[in-house]
Amino acid sequence: MINRLCIIGVGLIGGSIARSAKERGLCHEVLGIDCHTENLNKAKSLGVIDIASQSIDKNLPAADFVVVATPVGSIEQVILALKENYSPKSVYTDVGSTKVSIAKALESTFGDVPSNFILGHPIAGAEKSGVEASLPGLFRGKRIILTPNGDTDHEALTKVEAFWRALGGKISIMDVFHHDTVLAATSHLPHVIAYALTDMLGRKDEQNEILKYAAGGFKDFTRIASSDPEMWLDICLANRSKIIELVDQMTVELTKISAMLKEQDSDALYTVFNRAKSARKRFLDLQTDDHS
Amino acid sequence: MINRLCIIGVGLIGGSIARSAKERGLCHEVLGIDCHTENLNKAKSLGVIDIASQSIDKNLPAADFVVVATPVGSIEQVILALKENYSPKSVYTDVGSTKVSIAKALESTFGDVPSNFILGHPIAGAEKSGVEASLPGLFRGKRIILTPNGDTDHEALTKVEAFWRALGGKISIMDVFHHDTVLAATSHLPHVIAYALTDMLGRKDEQNEILKYAAGGFKDFTRIASSDPEMWLDICLANRSKIIELVDQMTVELTKISAMLKEQDSDALYTVFNRAKSARKRFLDLQTDDHS
Repeated sequence: MINRLCIIGVGLIGGSIARSAKERGLCHEVLGIDCHTENLNKAKSLGVIDIASQSIDKNLPAADFVVVATPVGSIEQVILALKENYSPKSVYTDVGSTKVSIAKALESTFGDVPSNFILGHPIAGAEKSGVEASLPGLFRGKRIILTPNGDTDHEALTKVEAFWRALGGKISIMDVFHHDTVLAATSHLPHVIAYALTDMLGRKDEQNEILKYAAGGFKDFTRIASSDPEMWLDICLANRSKIIELVDQMTVELTKISAMLKEQDSDALYTVFNRAKSARKRFLDLQTDDHS
Repeated sequence: MINRLCIIGVGLIGGSIARSAKERGLCHEVLGIDCHTENLNKAKSLGVIDIASQSIDKNLPAADFVVVATPVGSIEQVILALKENYSPKSVYTDVGSTKVSIAKALESTFGDVPSNFILGHPIAGAEKSGVEASLPGLFRGKRIILTPNGDTDHEALTKVEAFWRALGGKISIMDVFHHDTVLAATSHLPHVIAYALTDMLGRKDEQNEILKYAAGGFKDFTRIASSDPEMWLDICLANRSKIIELVDQMTVELTKISAMLKEQDSDALYTVFNRAKSARKRFLDLQTDDHS
């Protein structure tokens, strides 16, 4: 049982962690830290947190389990602020969508990733943001990637694993580089494409008609373009080398398809479309296996 | 009241039209024409059609309302077959996802688009295909684009409009060129991108992991890549000039984003992401207005 759970950054994810932990009786109390008074007030009035603080201060050492849930772009600052009150007895984790940049920030502040800081990333999100959108069931059945290294404290890792399992998550372990490679493909690239496409169509003269005659397929396809632009700017910059590689690959793929269309190369186009359909079937099968 | 409704091509759309018309008592009987015996047998045993025929033959003149619902790639052939038994007293329409190519096929067969042939396109579909997936409510609340020209028979147009309205559709009128421009943006380009992305990721060494750690956003984003490859090959070829233009534009957009990432140009990236989010909000607002 956690005595004081500290959530730094009380938004959708931080708020959902607090709600989930409370609902399952995993902690005695939740300390919420957020530089925005508004977030803290909302979180407090919603009962998501018990104690509120605007800065990482002397309250922190008393927290035995600390979750950094701020946007990726401000984690470096949070890490700097954490250093002063860092406790080797507590367990620390984060939820950032990129991992290499955060590992590097920890290394540059602490010399190394502290052995009791378990970097992590719950694969759960929504286009909505803010503590008011937080849900106690957000992590149920969701994949939680943890990225320990050779120096990670085994006990701390076990505690973080147990915490996420209690919230309904399914743990996967990989290294920070692998995490960033995989997530660039499954999440970061699709977001970039959705933003680029929606922006491009939104700038056309006939945009209102385009949007009016768009059906369900388009709605689903562009859903992720409703995600928080600031958060995604941070993620894209933090993992830019991997994302650049994939965006450039995608450009090559589209150039090839354009050539196939120009040459009316039915066989080549059919091969791409059919391979894609098969790949998505494999994806759905994997997801089904995963839920069983 | 339609006496004999003829559906040429008894798949998802054709089957759904037959079911919808029967459920609403819009016709006495449905004649299903399909070159695949299997489709006809399924449609007959499901009660979707009453009479089955494998070819466009002498039964056809007796049909007072004819819907061509075959894949875009075979409409040219269907039009040729229709000519022999074409009745000036019946009403003809189609449901093809592209309109210029079909208008051209009619022109090359009949000299002109016959005045009683109303080209149309219901903006309704699903990744599933086949008559077994057909639904009597598929067109409820859906946008139906009709593309008459200056020579279109007013009475025939009125009948087709009334038919779709009775099925719950909302009619929009535009010309064939405009239809193909708008649909290239809202539907054809997103399909091409979804196929290209899913195929690209599916060919990577770490594809199983990529798919395993993909979350809901990815699932929605790639849903349209599960669409029938053959059908989409036909559509892409039929509307290729418009699609090529957009694929090439998208390539330019992605190249720009890659440059922004390389230069770490936060302002430019934020502008794209934020404009996209606003464009999608306008899209959702338009859709809401449309349903009210």
